[in-house]
Amino acid sequence: MSADGRIVGRGWTQPGGRPHGEAMALAEAGEAARGATAYVSLEPCAHWGKTPPCADALVAAGVTRAVVATGDPDPRVSGRGLDRMTAAGMTVDLGLMAAEAGALNAGFFSRILKGRPLVAWKVATTLDGRIATAAGESQWITGPEARTMGHMLRASHDAIMVGVGTALADNPRLNVRVSGLEERSPVRVVIDSRLRLPLTHTLVREACEGGRPPVWIITRTDCDRSRHDALAAAGITVIEVPHGADGRPDPLRMTEALGDRGITRVLVEGGGELAASLLRDRLVDRIHWFRAPAVMGGDGVPAARSYGVQELVDMAAFVRLDIRQLGPDLYEVYAGTAVVTPGG
Amino acid sequence: MSADGRIVGRGWTQPGGRPHGEAMALAEAGEAARGATAYVSLEPCAHWGKTPPCADALVAAGVTRAVVATGDPDPRVSGRGLDRMTAAGMTVDLGLMAAEAGALNAGFFSRILKGRPLVAWKVATTLDGRIATAAGESQWITGPEARTMGHMLRASHDAIMVGVGTALADNPRLNVRVSGLEERSPVRVVIDSRLRLPLTHTLVREACEGGRPPVWIITRTDCDRSRHDALAAAGITVIEVPHGADGRPDPLRMTEALGDRGITRVLVEGGGELAASLLRDRLVDRIHWFRAPAVMGGDGVPAARSYGVQELVDMAAFVRLDIRQLGPDLYEVYAGTAVVTPGG
Ligand SMILES: NC(=O)c1ccc[n+]([C@@H]2O[C@H](COP(=O)([O-])OP(=O)(O)OC[C@H]3O[C@@H](n4cnc5c(N)ncnc54)[C@H](OP(=O)(O)O)[C@@H]3O)[C@@H](O)[C@H]2O)c1
Ligand SMILES: NC(=O)c1ccc[n+]([C@@H]2O[C@H](COP(=O)([O-])OP(=O)(O)OC[C@H]3O[C@@H](n4cnc5c(N)ncnc54)[C@H](OP(=O)(O)O)[C@@H]3O)[C@@H](O)[C@H]2O)c1
Repeated sequence: MSADGRIVGRGWTQPGGRPHGEAMALAEAGEAARGATAYVSLEPCAHWGKTPPCADALVAAGVTRAVVATGDPDPRVSGRGLDRMTAAGMTVDLGLMAAEAGALNAGFFSRILKGRPLVAWKVATTLDGRIATAAGESQWITGPEARTMGHMLRASHDAIMVGVGTALADNPRLNVRVSGLEERSPVRVVIDSRLRLPLTHTLVREACEGGRPPVWIITRTDCDRSRHDALAAAGITVIEVPHGADGRPDPLRMTEALGDRGITRVLVEGGGELAASLLRDRLVDRIHWFRAPAVMGGDGVPAARSYGVQELVDMAAFVRLDIRQLGPDLYEVYAGTAVVTPGG
Repeated sequence: MSADGRIVGRGWTQPGGRPHGEAMALAEAGEAARGATAYVSLEPCAHWGKTPPCADALVAAGVTRAVVATGDPDPRVSGRGLDRMTAAGMTVDLGLMAAEAGALNAGFFSRILKGRPLVAWKVATTLDGRIATAAGESQWITGPEARTMGHMLRASHDAIMVGVGTALADNPRLNVRVSGLEERSPVRVVIDSRLRLPLTHTLVREACEGGRPPVWIITRTDCDRSRHDALAAAGITVIEVPHGADGRPDPLRMTEALGDRGITRVLVEGGGELAASLLRDRLVDRIHWFRAPAVMGGDGVPAARSYGVQELVDMAAFVRLDIRQLGPDLYEVYAGTAVVTPGG
């Protein structure tokens, strides 16, 4: 928020989603908000939630102009925030840095528009796309720079998801181990049709110790009750979703279940089976590909198992967003070709 | 060659290896060579071949200084060219742009030092390292920009090599189809243990028509004589080399056989089996990797078949030399970690 070319207040939506950024900035600006211009990445809200609508709060504080990067696709807002401000005599400019704001809000938009979080797949492979040796050795295919970037990625998502195959093979902790970002560790989610994850697994033990971040398991609706109860008693949230023809939790339903619980960005960290299911159902919105300069050959575990590609045109296609060198490795970022384009 | 800051003559070694670049430049300079400085990428030769030694020719022409990028590892030269010039009173400076000259002469150095050509592997894959669908569809995984670059690569090698699997699956012509470079089409080499290549194959028909570029087949020493003779009668050069434990022509012997025939740079265009054999025997000096932004999954044909990697440390490792975007695709260049370092 600025007045006379001076920043009079700044704010961002707090963890958990409240208060909104506008309320924070108004509180900081106080009387200086009168006659000021508000710059917001997303259309101010127009509905009463736990707090009054931000559009009204801006008007009440005497803000005279709003520069809004992108509209809010939430049907409870969707243009109404802009309308309320215009009706109250404010000047409203829409579209400044809309692409950047779209990227920032991609997870939120996905949840609102598709009812599921943005799905990002992170994978570390050799040049020929192998994630582990036949014997399961995968630590470390890529170097320390790539691994640090992997932890940064975790910190920018609100859930990490793995298949039970990876949970069993690697016994991973799935938390953020970059100093200063430990508190940003997202929810840990294991996909496990038959509740095979043993009670002795690191993730179960950490959940049992009341550990943050939480551990969730997604399984079938007809799962074994006694195992369900034992895992729940250990402090794990067991989420049941319908299964598909392959007898496994349906991928779209899995992601919707996460969306229902407020997750907007999920980072899928493998393995090859889970990635294949998500690719098959065209649920992969982003890929974060870390690539080491070595060739493993046909014995290695593939990044994505078979998912039914018969012809080249059947492949899940992507567009490259970014490419960087990380020490000896490459870091490539891709977006699914069916990209969310928010209304407004 | 320059005198008084002016270029008085230029030259490069002609196709076939004679005349050498020095002779060309001296011819162009004529009398202006007297008192001039010669800039050469490789130490001038010191032995009588079909032509007199270049070191002597420079002295005789009155050149007073030679700036030499790198020494010639050929034991018939190896310092003697420099010595002859110094002994005759010329000033000799060694080492300017040595790295660039090393790259330019990499194939020649490999042949002199290792008795085999530089082996470059070219491969076009998806993100997950697949070169074709299970049904064999591989045209076109990458886009037109990548394919054009592939043809440019052919023009900078003196042989192209494929396994008989690829020859049969794709019926490729293996020539240069970039306008202006058609004349630079290298020798076409098929690796075929059992002489399975049918007489009706495009490559055999082209050889039969007396076609340029030549077609060579590398097979086992105990190959079927009647097939051998039929292919030879069709105009194909059939090269016999000893086989390894897998019953196939031994990869090192294959490359040495090419070296014996004057080949300094061979571009291996697959498929996955041939690449695996070359990786196993650590013969891959360069990789030219073209990568399309799509994921094929576990059904696809792997870039490199199994070659016995049990642990991560067993992998053939590379260092990245270059990376570029070619339309939607990536083009990555790697060097084997055991790099030829010429003496001198
Ligand atoms: N380099 C890397 O980036 C990286 C990352 C992760 C893993 N890895 C390696 O990858 C290997 C594990 O990969 P993986 O392919 O065997 O296992 P995975 O994908 O981690 O797990 C697959 C298992 O998840 C369960 N699952 C439940 N619902 C599913 C669904 N809808 N779709 C797919 N799977 C579902 C299935 O078991 P149920 O049917 O019993 O539920 C399935 O067997 C390990 O060797 C690990 O080290 C490497
Ligand atoms: N996208 C791309 O860049 C690209 C490039 C090339 C090929 N491809 C695709 O790859 C597939 C063919 O690949 P592939 O792996 O099946 O076949 P390949 O590597 O082209 O040929 C393998 C065959 O070569 C013969 N061979 C002889 N000596 C050998 C040796 N020392 N090492 C290995 N092989 C030797 C063997 O047959 P014998 O034992 O009978 O001699 C072997 O079966 C096709 O689908 C093609 O479309 C794609």
